[in-house]
Amino acid sequence: MNSFDYYNPTFLIFGKNRDSEVGNILKDMGVNKVLLHYGGGSIKKNGVYDRVTSSLTSAEINYIELGGVAPNPHLSMVRRGIDICRRSSVDLILAVGGGSVIDSAKAIAIGAANNEDIWDIFRKKMRITSALKVATVLTIPAAGSEASPNTVITDEVHKDKIGYGSKLLYPVFSIINPEIFTSLPKDQIANGISDMMSHIMERYFTNTENTDITDSMCEGVLKTIIKNGRILAKDPGNYNALEQIGLCGTIAHNGILGLGRNEDWACHGMGHELSGMYDVAHGSTLSVMTPAWMEYVKNENKEMFVQFAVNVFGITINLKNSDEVINRGINCLKQFYKELGLPTSMQELGANQSDYEYMAKKSTREGTEFLRSLGGIKILNWKDVLNIYNLASK
Amino acid sequence: MNSFDYYNPTFLIFGKNRDSEVGNILKDMGVNKVLLHYGGGSIKKNGVYDRVTSSLTSAEINYIELGGVAPNPHLSMVRRGIDICRRSSVDLILAVGGGSVIDSAKAIAIGAANNEDIWDIFRKKMRITSALKVATVLTIPAAGSEASPNTVITDEVHKDKIGYGSKLLYPVFSIINPEIFTSLPKDQIANGISDMMSHIMERYFTNTENTDITDSMCEGVLKTIIKNGRILAKDPGNYNALEQIGLCGTIAHNGILGLGRNEDWACHGMGHELSGMYDVAHGSTLSVMTPAWMEYVKNENKEMFVQFAVNVFGITINLKNSDEVINRGINCLKQFYKELGLPTSMQELGANQSDYEYMAKKSTREGTEFLRSLGGIKILNWKDVLNIYNLASK
Repeated sequence: MNSFDYYNPTFLIFGKNRDSEVGNILKDMGVNKVLLHYGGGSIKKNGVYDRVTSSLTSAEINYIELGGVAPNPHLSMVRRGIDICRRSSVDLILAVGGGSVIDSAKAIAIGAANNEDIWDIFRKKMRITSALKVATVLTIPAAGSEASPNTVITDEVHKDKIGYGSKLLYPVFSIINPEIFTSLPKDQIANGISDMMSHIMERYFTNTENTDITDSMCEGVLKTIIKNGRILAKDPGNYNALEQIGLCGTIAHNGILGLGRNEDWACHGMGHELSGMYDVAHGSTLSVMTPAWMEYVKNENKEMFVQFAVNVFGITINLKNSDEVINRGINCLKQFYKELGLPTSMQELGANQSDYEYMAKKSTREGTEFLRSLGGIKILNWKDVLNIYNLASK
Repeated sequence: MNSFDYYNPTFLIFGKNRDSEVGNILKDMGVNKVLLHYGGGSIKKNGVYDRVTSSLTSAEINYIELGGVAPNPHLSMVRRGIDICRRSSVDLILAVGGGSVIDSAKAIAIGAANNEDIWDIFRKKMRITSALKVATVLTIPAAGSEASPNTVITDEVHKDKIGYGSKLLYPVFSIINPEIFTSLPKDQIANGISDMMSHIMERYFTNTENTDITDSMCEGVLKTIIKNGRILAKDPGNYNALEQIGLCGTIAHNGILGLGRNEDWACHGMGHELSGMYDVAHGSTLSVMTPAWMEYVKNENKEMFVQFAVNVFGITINLKNSDEVINRGINCLKQFYKELGLPTSMQELGANQSDYEYMAKKSTREGTEFLRSLGGIKILNWKDVLNIYNLASK
């Protein structure tokens, strides 16, 4: 295991109807004015908007609204939010939504408290020493962003998607009311499940040795997601399953499952190019990338892939043949994505083979001063990424 | 699953030699003067005292020493610490030790910042609104107290042991250097392992339904402890095993494994009476209490005890007979304690049957205004406790 620092001060408030408490919580914190940030308006249909705004009003919290955050949240919206926060004396950004809204809120929080251009801060990974406070009311399980220090923003004009992280970006609190999830369309839940599984697998697949505790916790949460994901594939509004999935999404990305491990994140890196280019759901890029990536890197650490097959998917037949076991594990994962109705090939994403080289080079910032490799269990250059895009096309 | 609030702001600093960073960390926090609190002096033999004090000195942090904390930390020591902190302008209490030292530090932190008598605060569970800051350098795995909001203190004169909890008692940071554990005597590691397993099992055994995620994480951490505990039973200085055990101890008690579950804590309650009366190690009271308690309550929730036997100890033979499976699971646990050299009967603790009724009544505060029951999976009155003490004598 590696040395590590771990810090996660986000206050989690979990359970039925707890979004109604938001006004009083903010009042207790001494907050006067918030930017109420949300997405395409689904919160106005499912009752969340009404509960949150009436809670704010009765606690006498002023709010300015900024709705309309798109999936793969856009830089232009972030700039609008920064402008509003700078002009008004906003104390805190209240993100009511999923990962996109929360990520947009975090980027606004950075920009509002710093003079540098927000996209320069992202591109150059400039270190920040201040940010506005962010709090969240989660409307989609699996964002992960509700208890993480990270954000990912897309420059929609230049089709560029960049992540940024800082301890200052942990939400001060996050409210998770699984009842909200019962009205979500099936494909949003499926994409959320794919995303949270990837948040775990990016941490799980590692060459770091002596990782029993986090191995076993990763496997336990993955099994919980698979069991409850199957329930939701047949019964999307099942409250008990959504409660489990809701908590899995937060645990998957609050850092605890990666303690002391080298992490990978190649699938996220390769997937970001796909959603940046084709504006497809983040979770769907991961269900396409992950099995292809596994196929490409499996021989780098066979023991790890055998353990995955055995401990997550319960493969016990013919353990003598590790290659067979590994392939069975990968097939089980692919099959599970299909059960959820998720894509598992580039074709299903509407990707064009003629774009692959461009995206592969972009994923590693090939030819720029920001050149990087992807991955951990195997270090990938742009040619590896191209190979994986091609593998995912079969 | 139940609704829950979860908050754990303790900064964990984990890895080899990281106790040498303590001075700089305190300096960055703006701390000037600390109470350096420790136990019987083992830190002067294993190098920790030298590393910590030279780190404090080079960072120009003033410190007042208060050593000599006993196992089952004593109220009289807490009063001495409170007195010192009140007279000097101490900013923070730095606990260098195991659970006893940390718990003593937390009690001092309460008393130094409040005018009420410290034992009144404990006995009457008075709510506090301020406390001095506490930070820790952990010297024994399994304290749990390094990332928990709880403390347990013993009035050594009246043989009374009482716990207290407040969000203000989370250490601001905890440093865990597993190298320190390599010089520990075998019985201290064994007691630590028993304690951390109990911290998990007190959360695990519940009647709360729909708890897949925390069930699976509890089981994963328990399996990790058992695997690495067996390594340490044969090779007490094994660094890799101590690294795993060190992290298990923290995760076991940082609250994450109990999210949304009714917890039990009967074994801790019954065990506290034993260590209060006979001054035996906390972990040894738990290895005696837990199997007897399981025997007494197993029919309250057979499914839970079957799951424990199957998922923690891998029992797969004759699953058709749940009673047999449950008994095998309990026996495996008892056998594991024996492998570690821990006691599993009252006799081994030196307990006298003539004390049982007194301790049983004391455990539930029978006949006082503070009357309480113990447990969750089965609610225990003093007669139940007496039955369990008797069961543990066979």
